[in-house]
Amino acid sequence: MQVYTAPKLNKVKVTSDFWKRYRELVVKEVLPYQWKVMNDEADISIAEDPQNNGQDKNSHAVANLKIAAGEMKGHHYGFPFQDTDVYKWLEAAAYSFGYHPNPDLKKITDNLIDLIAKAQDDDGYLSTYFQIDAPERKFKRLQQSHELYTMGHYIEAGVAYYNATGNEKALDIAKRMADCIDNNFGLEEGKIPGYDGHPEIELALSRLYEVTQDKKYLDLAHYFLTQRGQDPAFFEKQIKADGDSVDRDLIPGMRDFTREYYLAAEPIKDQKVPHGHAVRVVYLCTGMAYVARYTGDKDLLAACDRFWNDIVKRQMYITGNIGQTTTGEAFTYDYDLPNDTDYGETCASVGMSFFARQMLNIHAKGEYADVLEKELFNGALSGMSLDGKHFFYVNPLEADPAASKGNPGKSHVLTHRADWFGCACCPANLARLIASVDEYLYTESGDTILSHQFIANDAEFDDGIKVSQTNHFPWSGDIHYEIENPNDASFKFGIRIPSWSASYELKVNGGAKTLPVKDGFIYLDVDGKSLTLDLKLDMSTKIMRANNRVSHDFGKVAVQRGPVVYAAEQADNEAPLWLYQVSPDAKTDYHFDEKLLDGVGVVKVAAKREKLDSDEANLYTEAKSEETENVDLTMIPYYAWANRENGQMSVWLNR
Amino acid sequence: MQVYTAPKLNKVKVTSDFWKRYRELVVKEVLPYQWKVMNDEADISIAEDPQNNGQDKNSHAVANLKIAAGEMKGHHYGFPFQDTDVYKWLEAAAYSFGYHPNPDLKKITDNLIDLIAKAQDDDGYLSTYFQIDAPERKFKRLQQSHELYTMGHYIEAGVAYYNATGNEKALDIAKRMADCIDNNFGLEEGKIPGYDGHPEIELALSRLYEVTQDKKYLDLAHYFLTQRGQDPAFFEKQIKADGDSVDRDLIPGMRDFTREYYLAAEPIKDQKVPHGHAVRVVYLCTGMAYVARYTGDKDLLAACDRFWNDIVKRQMYITGNIGQTTTGEAFTYDYDLPNDTDYGETCASVGMSFFARQMLNIHAKGEYADVLEKELFNGALSGMSLDGKHFFYVNPLEADPAASKGNPGKSHVLTHRADWFGCACCPANLARLIASVDEYLYTESGDTILSHQFIANDAEFDDGIKVSQTNHFPWSGDIHYEIENPNDASFKFGIRIPSWSASYELKVNGGAKTLPVKDGFIYLDVDGKSLTLDLKLDMSTKIMRANNRVSHDFGKVAVQRGPVVYAAEQADNEAPLWLYQVSPDAKTDYHFDEKLLDGVGVVKVAAKREKLDSDEANLYTEAKSEETENVDLTMIPYYAWANRENGQMSVWLNR
Repeated sequence: MQVYTAPKLNKVKVTSDFWKRYRELVVKEVLPYQWKVMNDEADISIAEDPQNNGQDKNSHAVANLKIAAGEMKGHHYGFPFQDTDVYKWLEAAAYSFGYHPNPDLKKITDNLIDLIAKAQDDDGYLSTYFQIDAPERKFKRLQQSHELYTMGHYIEAGVAYYNATGNEKALDIAKRMADCIDNNFGLEEGKIPGYDGHPEIELALSRLYEVTQDKKYLDLAHYFLTQRGQDPAFFEKQIKADGDSVDRDLIPGMRDFTREYYLAAEPIKDQKVPHGHAVRVVYLCTGMAYVARYTGDKDLLAACDRFWNDIVKRQMYITGNIGQTTTGEAFTYDYDLPNDTDYGETCASVGMSFFARQMLNIHAKGEYADVLEKELFNGALSGMSLDGKHFFYVNPLEADPAASKGNPGKSHVLTHRADWFGCACCPANLARLIASVDEYLYTESGDTILSHQFIANDAEFDDGIKVSQTNHFPWSGDIHYEIENPNDASFKFGIRIPSWSASYELKVNGGAKTLPVKDGFIYLDVDGKSLTLDLKLDMSTKIMRANNRVSHDFGKVAVQRGPVVYAAEQADNEAPLWLYQVSPDAKTDYHFDEKLLDGVGVVKVAAKREKLDSDEANLYTEAKSEETENVDLTMIPYYAWANRENGQMSVWLNR
Repeated sequence: MQVYTAPKLNKVKVTSDFWKRYRELVVKEVLPYQWKVMNDEADISIAEDPQNNGQDKNSHAVANLKIAAGEMKGHHYGFPFQDTDVYKWLEAAAYSFGYHPNPDLKKITDNLIDLIAKAQDDDGYLSTYFQIDAPERKFKRLQQSHELYTMGHYIEAGVAYYNATGNEKALDIAKRMADCIDNNFGLEEGKIPGYDGHPEIELALSRLYEVTQDKKYLDLAHYFLTQRGQDPAFFEKQIKADGDSVDRDLIPGMRDFTREYYLAAEPIKDQKVPHGHAVRVVYLCTGMAYVARYTGDKDLLAACDRFWNDIVKRQMYITGNIGQTTTGEAFTYDYDLPNDTDYGETCASVGMSFFARQMLNIHAKGEYADVLEKELFNGALSGMSLDGKHFFYVNPLEADPAASKGNPGKSHVLTHRADWFGCACCPANLARLIASVDEYLYTESGDTILSHQFIANDAEFDDGIKVSQTNHFPWSGDIHYEIENPNDASFKFGIRIPSWSASYELKVNGGAKTLPVKDGFIYLDVDGKSLTLDLKLDMSTKIMRANNRVSHDFGKVAVQRGPVVYAAEQADNEAPLWLYQVSPDAKTDYHFDEKLLDGVGVVKVAAKREKLDSDEANLYTEAKSEETENVDLTMIPYYAWANRENGQMSVWLNR
């Protein structure tokens, strides 16, 4: 195992037009909007979905904290993990300060830190659900309680807020939480030999270790990962002790999921493929990757590799979305990738980005950055509308308003983004990913700086090294680098050659150069004062197919250009979309339309379309070669779908 | 509206090898097996499915009757409609006496009639669930109680038993039930202005009217049909009055279905398309067709026509199966026909056969007999294994054991028939259809005898007229008729030309004759003493396609020969089945294999198959024209699938 030292990167400023738009949207729309919702001040409606849980107000998330802090009277409202909406929002706000200082917002967030500190119990515990309405049940039903998950999200936020602002109180709250957990969990006499039903604390403690360098936090994270599944009956035993009746459940129905669902049926080192809730899996994997790197635990690293391989090679949609079924928002089985009943939770794509990011710290392999890029430009980004105020929880690859309305098996598939959700985990999760995208661009290893993404940026490293990347990515594949090396440091600069770019051209200081691609990277020696690189990636539009083990994609093609996966929408094409047939060698035409959908690359694909049969025709007739007409199918980036009128959408097209 | 007089048919003896096998199976295996199960004496396991309701014994259905009759102590067990399993079985037994006298069985059924009579309340009421455990709640939660449904099933059985055996007690129980219902329901002061959540009583009362000619039963049936939906809040009001809390529900979750689901949102005459539970719909339609015919109610007839048209043209699988979603076993919407999440309940196909049969009494149109034939040879018949002791509740058109196990959205799709079900409505329902198939072969109208099916039989009519049909259908399309007309009666003989037979050849007394097809029939004048007809139907194997409004079948073909729809099974073909591609003009080869699956016609279809991609290959790659190899795909009749080793099955093949 190749262990990299901590990055010596000092500062990254994202200059990409594409990402600046999104990052400013986070500041101007997303954060203010979400704060309003969480304070129950927004005039919105909650999506009718199975996660709704009967919730009929905005959120109550801030109110819960105020009640726990003694500033308000009342009961807890919402899910046991309602607090995390606030924490993820706080974390996003913290990141935003790095590129958009904002004193008004900082007043709010400083006050929020004070509120959280006030809500925290003396022993460091903080979960408003239990503090307000069930103090006697703390840590007693971990399958469902999300207590460590909840505190984990605060710890992440606290670390980010401390890093961004230097606010010691924010970090102190996190440390006190971690200490509380450390005092309550472990194999020592009197402690709980268990773990949370929803992984998160493992990665959070790792981040706390990074900032504090206090090894007890790493050890605690390690404990949670190795203890998981050692006693497969742990959750059931807790439930029995806490009162077995169904009306004691914290979240109805959650006891019905299997041990595998909770990744607790056996120790992780023995689990062959990831099962269960997609978000649980990728959060767990992220924690494993952190801890494997810092501890050298080979079992955990092997599990990371194994799970990664299964997800990416057998259970991931072409858009990067994961989790194929609405039942438990879960993985199903290898090569089962239905497009119209897909779950593809936004949070799962965000979590997959975390996992990929951590794997880049372990192995210098381009495939991690490939997947990360896939999420950033497709499956994760699709979770938010262009106005920053509407969100998808579920990201289908095929949508039809008639189906979502008429077939209960597809009722979870919204065809327009919602204002908010009863379980509102996704909106702020995506906000924190966008606001921290600068942290996903480089890793360093010994004498090598690796550039993973083509998100234009200005970066400053130790020794006065500066790297400036400019481009119009993802619309253009012309990538320009300027490297300044004022002190004549000697280092290598690695650039990822994406898997979607079958070929590339490179000029170094104006001269063509051919370099071998090693594990997805080309490496240049930098030893002069400056270096100019011009990389030309293959941006031709590709007609893609799935491995033919995927029954749902057999006989279908998808369209991809660069990292961007395309979708056909009824807004541009006469429905039904399934009548269009695209051949593997179809002619395509690309243009950038700055007026459309805040500026997107549009692909026109030559297609054949059958004439729609009459609705009075027989349902079944003898087949013959059907007449078709030649038409152009207009496709837009998947992330931008459902920003116009409600209608059908499809990523996969009949062949 | 053309109203036919009652059939003057006296007797039909089924001589078809195909159907004799099934009908003897009913006598030798199905009836004894089901009696054993209903008496809790079978060593079986109940299918794990959502209908299971936690049931862990065989059935308890006979025991419930014994408890209600005071012959046993204990509580009711099973669904509120558990009694109907016994009644449908009794009805099947009654039909079986018509072709297989069976004194031993008759002792059992006579005793059963005595038991039922003993269980019946003095006022005629009989529903053991309420009699045993909730007498104070009779008729108080009709949305869920199934009381009229339950008594309706007895009435059908009682009528059949009386017709078969002359047992007056059997008919008397039925009349007393109907009188009880008549005393309790109606718009008169003090009566309940409502109806049952599950239609059935309407068709049952019509059958009681047929045998008794007592018009009050027809009026009562008519009342239930016209009153339905007049007060859309009827069920909710009852629930409120009976105690609104969820734990008072008779069947958990049933209150969550919409008024449309119960066909009670508006009067039937105003309902444009059928919604909700497929079985409820077709039972209602059957009742409407009976009552429309006997009363001349044009609104009801229009509803029959409208619902028929929507089901057959827009919501029926090629196998005749109906009900596209497991959620409520229900219809979804026009042209939504997913093959792998299909419900296609066996009972719904049985009910659709009832509906078709009654429509044949109204309109002399071949399409009703076409659909009936489709059910008899495909969608309904598929509900039972060749051994008569295993049953499908759900009949998918595409099955994969990996999917049923691994994707919760397909967990309702069994890939092997079960011993029995918690909700065991289907097994005996199919038994009564098979045992009464002789009643589906002819209708009479004025001077015309219509022959609907090519199920070989000897039939005797008034005036000494005899019709003998011989053939090896469905494997051969050579149909031979001998008509004896000893008294030189003058009448017309109509023969259905099935929609699947684009052409036909006819010889009358050896001489070729061409006749026009009118609404699916050809008509011959019979005026001599005898007539020999030789009809040659088009039995060529057809490659079929669906109306291209059906997204799930687009780019796919199915194989049909005569009325028999074919399926590819993994037992004959290397999986995965989706890799096979069949063109509309594929060469096919047919042979009869008497050793296979108790004798079936086998179709070999020339196909191309892609080589299976490696499971280490990338999930997504650039599409190109893939290499294929030429292979023969072996297909067997759909009704006979899942009688060998567990594996994939598919009706629709990629094109």
